[in-house]
Parts: sequence; structure tokens; C-alpha cells
Amino acid sequence: MSRIAIIGAGPSGLAMLRAFEAAREAGAEVPELVCYEKQTDWGGQWNYSWRTGLDEYGEPVPSSMYRNLWSNGPKEGLEFADYSFDQHFGRPVSSYPPREVLWDYIAGRVEASDVRKYIRFETAVRWVSYDETTEQFTVSSQTLPTGADSVETFDHVVVASGHFTYPNFPSFPGIETFPGMLTHAHDFRGAEGLKDQDVLVIGASYSAEDIGSQAYKMGAKSVTASYRTKPMGYDWPDGFSERPGIERFDGYTVHFIDGTSKDVDAVIVCTGYLHKYPYLPESLGLRSPNNVYPDGLYQGVVWNANPKLFYVGAQDQWFTFNMFDAQAWFVRDLILGRIPMPTQSERDASIADWRARFETIADASDEIRFQGDYVRDLIDQTDYPSFDVDGVVEIFLSWKEDKAADIMGYRDYTYKSVMTGTRSVRHHTRWMDELDDSMERYLQTAK
Amino acid sequence: MSRIAIIGAGPSGLAMLRAFEAAREAGAEVPELVCYEKQTDWGGQWNYSWRTGLDEYGEPVPSSMYRNLWSNGPKEGLEFADYSFDQHFGRPVSSYPPREVLWDYIAGRVEASDVRKYIRFETAVRWVSYDETTEQFTVSSQTLPTGADSVETFDHVVVASGHFTYPNFPSFPGIETFPGMLTHAHDFRGAEGLKDQDVLVIGASYSAEDIGSQAYKMGAKSVTASYRTKPMGYDWPDGFSERPGIERFDGYTVHFIDGTSKDVDAVIVCTGYLHKYPYLPESLGLRSPNNVYPDGLYQGVVWNANPKLFYVGAQDQWFTFNMFDAQAWFVRDLILGRIPMPTQSERDASIADWRARFETIADASDEIRFQGDYVRDLIDQTDYPSFDVDGVVEIFLSWKEDKAADIMGYRDYTYKSVMTGTRSVRHHTRWMDELDDSMERYLQTAK
Repeated sequence: MSRIAIIGAGPSGLAMLRAFEAAREAGAEVPELVCYEKQTDWGGQWNYSWRTGLDEYGEPVPSSMYRNLWSNGPKEGLEFADYSFDQHFGRPVSSYPPREVLWDYIAGRVEASDVRKYIRFETAVRWVSYDETTEQFTVSSQTLPTGADSVETFDHVVVASGHFTYPNFPSFPGIETFPGMLTHAHDFRGAEGLKDQDVLVIGASYSAEDIGSQAYKMGAKSVTASYRTKPMGYDWPDGFSERPGIERFDGYTVHFIDGTSKDVDAVIVCTGYLHKYPYLPESLGLRSPNNVYPDGLYQGVVWNANPKLFYVGAQDQWFTFNMFDAQAWFVRDLILGRIPMPTQSERDASIADWRARFETIADASDEIRFQGDYVRDLIDQTDYPSFDVDGVVEIFLSWKEDKAADIMGYRDYTYKSVMTGTRSVRHHTRWMDELDDSMERYLQTAK
Repeated sequence: MSRIAIIGAGPSGLAMLRAFEAAREAGAEVPELVCYEKQTDWGGQWNYSWRTGLDEYGEPVPSSMYRNLWSNGPKEGLEFADYSFDQHFGRPVSSYPPREVLWDYIAGRVEASDVRKYIRFETAVRWVSYDETTEQFTVSSQTLPTGADSVETFDHVVVASGHFTYPNFPSFPGIETFPGMLTHAHDFRGAEGLKDQDVLVIGASYSAEDIGSQAYKMGAKSVTASYRTKPMGYDWPDGFSERPGIERFDGYTVHFIDGTSKDVDAVIVCTGYLHKYPYLPESLGLRSPNNVYPDGLYQGVVWNANPKLFYVGAQDQWFTFNMFDAQAWFVRDLILGRIPMPTQSERDASIADWRARFETIADASDEIRFQGDYVRDLIDQTDYPSFDVDGVVEIFLSWKEDKAADIMGYRDYTYKSVMTGTRSVRHHTRWMDELDDSMERYLQTAK
């Protein structure tokens, strides 16, 4: 029987396990699976840790989440087609759940499926190599609590370790002596301590938007967001403003390139993440900016230079959980031989086609539609439950309008699931006033 | 010609390069050397980075140093026997130089020696394996800016990557929601931001002592140090106090096991470091508490289970730079065959002897004398310039008395070099009043 290594038990790795398990439940013979997970539990990004930098074993902390993180997109956009929110919670819940609630939803599906046994927790993959002669991968791993290592061979490797762990942290003149709080979004764990502080967030994407909003919500004296190319442009509340790029730091003072300056107590650098796979040699490792169609991946998942290696979840994401599913089902069917692996030139042509369309993307709406088409294309090729992808695209487009209309209030809006037809309920408390992000508090919604 | 891999170009790795170069200068034929260094420059811990957690390539930041770090032991205790401070600076300097000055001293010796060419900077070792058949090591490494990997074989590996990089960070009840600044000493970069703050340092060793003192020096409102076994017991100034272990955190309030509590703004966890070598399989990796004679290392440097592998600088340290030299010269001579490698049973017996004495160590003075004897034992076996090790032991014993007498003032004291007989000069400014730790400012000393 062939052997498959899956690296990571976050949403993407779990989708891969679930895909194989669904085939097994339907009577198929499936390969032997080994899933390596560095953390003590599954969930990847959604498995929050209070730790920063290096964890109790000296390993980089994988999760970049923080206390009081609520989904920044409606849950109707990420719902699994084979496991609805209604099924998990037994009743309608709101559209923007906090982290713990989404973690519970992800976990609920895999609890219901018997896949935990495939996962080696607290085990770090150290190095992967490929032998051209045997056509097998050698995976060297280490069990963190004991230091015991293991060297095993596999026919396929699925990289599902994510790309929101390793910070992209540019330098700025004078930053080396900034005396206040200085951290990348990756190591930001909560905004409570920013009360009454002058806060600078550097960046103009989701991290800057949400961490800036958190700081505002928790009572920061002021929030300043510095953009490099263009401002986020929301209708920010009083005390929240945008400024252009940073020229330099001088003590607590930050100088912007427009000649203005501001004294700040805390700086959170929200400049994104690196595609980094320290366990992969150059011949297998994806190096790409964060975008919706990284070059070198056939159908967004097959490593074109060696099609025995796969990536799940390597794209920038509008669709998330259900896209990982679409990818995992497709990868599974390639491995099972249900879908034939195209030749190198066929793969080249497909990548060229998608990349050509990718190059024409003009704005976020284009990108959402692009990713919708990509997800639909994958689903059409497997037995993953079909769903109204266009309906999800519409949800994302509405969501963008809702955010533009009310950046501090959009999480109070509701959407209708394309999976179940259920309309979500409003959370019992406005997001701006809700300071308790626990699942216990959240589930008071429907009382 | 045989090939040697040296992992790390900090003080220990540089000592190893210098040892081989000294032999070459004296006419010996020496093996091919490859030194792997993750950072862009040499110096290891002494190569300060303002970054925390993960660096610009997503690699763990090696250095744990901070702004305004001054040596906490007299430089007369760590002076190289083959390169004196007088030789480097051309005049007497004070006994407790700041970081940049010590970095300059370390670099000065290797600049004068032609060893930079052996170092592959910005290159991370990913995995090392040993082949029993060929009796060679395979080292897989990756060049960080490009991702290019390299797999090479070596006859010997010298582990010199240090053991003050990976934090030992225990958990405490309630710490996961502490809202203030929370960091391990490893990620602490300066105390300026602690002005007017209530600061807690957890630990009772060098990090707690020095970071607590830094906080006091920079104007903290209060400094509280929490000890697990016993207090540091210095004659602390007003506003600096010691308390026992932590029972739990509750918001900004820390509760101690004696029933007292205190509200704090910032917590710096000073609980030491892990011996961690993520690139080594279990059969080669040292796992030890931080002590002066880790088990499993013959003469403190030979990996007893595979004597083709060596560790330099793996001990807890009173002696530092000159001990690394003593070790490096000894390892060099083993590799060159100048010193025969004892049999396994001889090595076992030697380790057992030293470990038996190690077990009788009662206090810090015993430990200093133990390490003095260890260093002398190594030096006696090689051509490393002999020096008055007992004299250095006496310096360390005086230093401990000076600290006990004046914890905030001991860095103003002076010592006499056993290498040159030169007595150091007092720094132009009392340490407590000196807020500029630059070399430029420091070298005004002798004006």
C-alpha cells in the first residue's frame, strides 16, 4: 500500500484527512496516512496559543491569532459542504463567530470522522528529500517532548503547514531603538494593554485593519495606520486615521514620508507573512508572494516540478475551509488514480492559462470571482458535495459593501447559508460592545 | 583531506576556526573547514539584533541580548590568552564593557586571522545524519536569502550553536490573559519602555538580576523579582524587592504563593534556556540541564556516543571565551590526531570521575573552582597559551563579593589582567548613570 505524508493538521491538513476518510467510508481502499503536527492539538491557526516567538519546545509558534479575534468574513463564505454550521451547533448562530467557535466547528467535523489516529502530535518535520531512483520521499521528523527522531519513506507528500506563520517583517530606519512596544502581528496576542495608548499599525491589509480596530475597541487613545501603496479608506471613527509610509523612527516619534510625525507608545507591524517551508529543499519548496494563484502549482495544488508533491491552502484566500476541501478532494483523487495526472506540458498549459487570467485581475471583486471559478473547477472534478459557489461569491461581494458602509459594525450583519438556506441570527451583543470572545458567551445568542 | 563542519560562528565556532588557523600558521596541514552561520555576521549572542521571535527569513533570532547590556562579569575573566584587550584596544579599558565593545574584541581576533572565508553566512543547517558504514556525516543546509539547499558530507561535526537561544518558558495559571507586556528574556530588547512601570521579572539567575537592574536603572516605578527556590538576596535599592513563586495571574494582578499580590504592567520571564539542536537526530543531540558538566560529553566536548561529533561551549559558563578556546584547541588536536581518542571505556571512566566531582559542588565558589580545574586540564593537553587559571578563579571570587557588596555599582570596580598584568581603568561614568552603551562613547574612557 502506498504511504502519504501530510504535513500539518490545520484546516488544510484536516481537509486532506477528511477527504481520504470520506473515500474510505464509501468503500475505497486508501493509502496509509501519516499526518505530522507540531502542536499538541489540531486546528493550525485556529488553535490559539498565548505564547509568542518560540514555544515551550523552542519551535516557532504556528498560530498568529489573538484574544478577541472574531472572523473577519462571514461564516457563510467558509462553510463546509459536507458539515454545516446547523449540523454542528443544532441551531442558527451569527455570521461572524469568534475564534474558539470556529475552532470548535473545524474540530467537530473531524471528531465525527475517525481521523485523529493518523496524526502524530508534537512532531516536527525537519527535512524532506526525494530520491529520483526509488521515486520516494524521505521525511525526517522529531518528537518534541522526547527528541526521538524518525526517518520514514513516502510515495506522496502533502504540504499543509500554511503560510501565515512566518512574519514578513521589514526594517525601518530607527526601529532598532524604538523604546515602546514593538511586535509583528504574528506575535500580537491582545489589545487590552493598548488602552489609553497611541498605537501605530503598519500595513493596509487584514491584520492592520483588524488589529487597528481591536485597539480602537479596547480604548486606545489613538490609532494610526500607515500604508505603503494606498490607504484602506474605510470610514474610520474619530481617533483612527491613516497616513502614508514611514520615513523613520526617532525614539517614540514616527516620521511619515509626507513630513508629518506622531508620537506612539506601541507599534504593530502588519506586513504579512512569508511562504516558508524550512523542511523542504529548494527543488520542492514554493517561493511566492501571497496571491490567489502562485506560480508552479498545477490546479493550485500539484507541485509542477515534481507532481508527487502537493500543496493544500497555499493561495491567498477569500474562500477558505471549503476551498481547502475542494483542493483536498482533488489531491486525493489524483493520488487514488481516479483523476489521471496530466503530462508536464498539459500542466504547464493549464498553469499558463490560469496565470494569464490571474494577471488581468483588477480589483478585489475580480479576485473573488477568480477564486470562485477556481473552486468550482476543482469541485466539478470530484465527488465533493456540489454547492452554490456563485452564491458564495455574492456573499463575499456583499460583505465587502457592508465593510465599506460600516467598518466597526459589519460583524453585526447576517447572511444566508448556501448549504442549508439558513439565515444567521444577530449576535446578542453588538461586536463593538462584546468584550467576551468565549464560546460559552457566544452560544447565548439563540437564547 | 578530511572535512570538518562547524555549526555556528559565535564565540565557540570562532574559537574552533581560530584553533585550526593557529595550527595552520604553525605549519600544520589542517582539514577543510566549513562553518555554517545563520546570521549575516559573526559573533553569535554578541551579534545584537533588534528583532524578536523570528527574523527576516522566519528563522529564530539567535541572540538574546538587549540594548544597554554591559558585561555582567569582569572582562579579565574571559580574556583570550592569545589576544589581549591591550592588544585590541591599545590601551587599558574598564572591566565591564558594553556588548558592542566585547563584540568588537571577539571580531578583532578573527579579523586578524584569515578565517572569514570558511564561513557560510545566512545559511541554516537543517538536518545532520551519520552513516555507520561510511563513518561520515551528511549535513543538509539552506541558504536563507535564496532557499538554495546543499547536502554535503563531513568526517567530523562541531556543534557550536550555543544554548542561550531557545527560551525555557514555563506556563503559569492565568498568564494566557495577562493584558500587559509579556516576554521571555530572550525577546527582551531594552528597558527604556519600562520607565514609570511596575515590572515583574520571574527568575533568580543572571537574566532576572540584570533585566531587573536595567528596569530599575531606566526608571521603573517598581521592580519585583519572583524566585522559585531562593532569592538572589542582593542589597537591592528601594523599589526593588524579591518575592517567592507565582501562584497565578489575574488580569494585571500577580498572586504569589505567600499570599501577597501585586499589580504589574510588564512581565519578563527569566527562566533560562533549553539545550536544543533541532538539526540533530536523537542519537547525536545533547539533552541536558544547563550545568558545568553535562553528562555524555567526554572532556566536556566529545560526544561519547559518537566521538566524531564535538560540542564547544555546551557548559554553563563562568569562564567563557578562554574556555571555548581551551575546548577548541583540544578538539582540534583530537581531530588532527595529536591527542589520541581514548576508548569508550576510558571515556566513560573520565566522565564518571568528573561527574562524581560535579555532584559534590555545593555553591558557586565550588563551581568556579571546578570550571577552573576543567579549563586547566584542557590547556595542559594542547599548545594553547598557558595562563594563570587560578588567578582568573580569584577574579571570579572577588567579583562575586563585589556584587554582594554593591549590586548596582559593581561594574564600576576594576581588575588586573592575568594575561598582561594590566589593571583596568574606571569607566568615565558610573554604570548607573551611563545611558549610552555605544563603543564610541565607551572609548572616551581613557581620554
